[in-house]
Amino acid sequence: MATRAAAATLTAAMSSLLRRSASLRPQGLRVPRRVPPRRFVRHIASSTNEEAAARAAAATADTGPPTIFDKIISKEIPSSVVYEDDKVLAFRDINPQAPVHVLVIPKVRDGLTGLSKAEPRHVEILGHLLYAAKVVAEKEGVANGYRVVINNGAEGCQSVYHLHLHVLGGRQMKWPAG
Amino acid sequence: MATRAAAATLTAAMSSLLRRSASLRPQGLRVPRRVPPRRFVRHIASSTNEEAAARAAAATADTGPPTIFDKIISKEIPSSVVYEDDKVLAFRDINPQAPVHVLVIPKVRDGLTGLSKAEPRHVEILGHLLYAAKVVAEKEGVANGYRVVINNGAEGCQSVYHLHLHVLGGRQMKWPAG
Repeated sequence: MATRAAAATLTAAMSSLLRRSASLRPQGLRVPRRVPPRRFVRHIASSTNEEAAARAAAATADTGPPTIFDKIISKEIPSSVVYEDDKVLAFRDINPQAPVHVLVIPKVRDGLTGLSKAEPRHVEILGHLLYAAKVVAEKEGVANGYRVVINNGAEGCQSVYHLHLHVLGGRQMKWPAG
Repeated sequence: MATRAAAATLTAAMSSLLRRSASLRPQGLRVPRRVPPRRFVRHIASSTNEEAAARAAAATADTGPPTIFDKIISKEIPSSVVYEDDKVLAFRDINPQAPVHVLVIPKVRDGLTGLSKAEPRHVEILGHLLYAAKVVAEKEGVANGYRVVINNGAEGCQSVYHLHLHVLGGRQMKWPAG
């Protein structure tokens, strides 16, 4: 059962990737990196997609099957890497919500399907992830400000169950944060 | 000059507090803790206030004058504490944007006016802050999910220059995150 669930989740993740990945589309259709999204229409469409994806993903979250991020870490699936060290990888979100939208993830998940699974032994990697988010923002030149976001669970809008920090910048972020 | 700037910022922070603080209002006007805000009108008003406050606060951010959080840490100003240990304090936001809205801050700022000021020596406290955010979410019972947000600088909508994590939950969070 666990294997079947894992396979189903991986298939769903691959379908999602094929639908969303700029790198798998013909070159002419790639989303320009620095162009802000069309705000109003995009906002509604993104919100609906992400909330539905989050609800679907939450169903198998606790079994912790592999996610699309494992293939990104292994470079089996290409990504636009912004920063990397021995512990973390930072790469551009394929569905950016701001001119700068980078994900920062631990290279080894170590049980961290989400922040809610953090234990005291994870404090060091959690700190390193936040510090890496700061480094990413610096590298991306968002001197006027940025926002770091962690979604946890369906109501938090989490759609991939491998802890990840969103670094969003390059435009005025609004309040509240979603 | 630095002293004058610090005094001005403190005055501005106090004015903001008096305007916003539920605990300083007559009892009859206190915002009930678990009632979600009226979304549409509140969203626009909050967004405008917070963006303006963020721009004003950014002007003196680098001088790092004391903030309202120092008085909250010293208990000179009362707050609704959710969690506390020797390193961090977590208390309810006085202008909640969700049924659960808690701020988690380091008790000693140590240069962390914002995440952008983080240095490698801060990794441990950054990790502890994120771990505390997870503990807060557990204590608040937001089992269906939550969001953790760090605003940095004016475009990130940061209005107090003492690093703080927002823990938001108790309703479906939207995407994008502001």
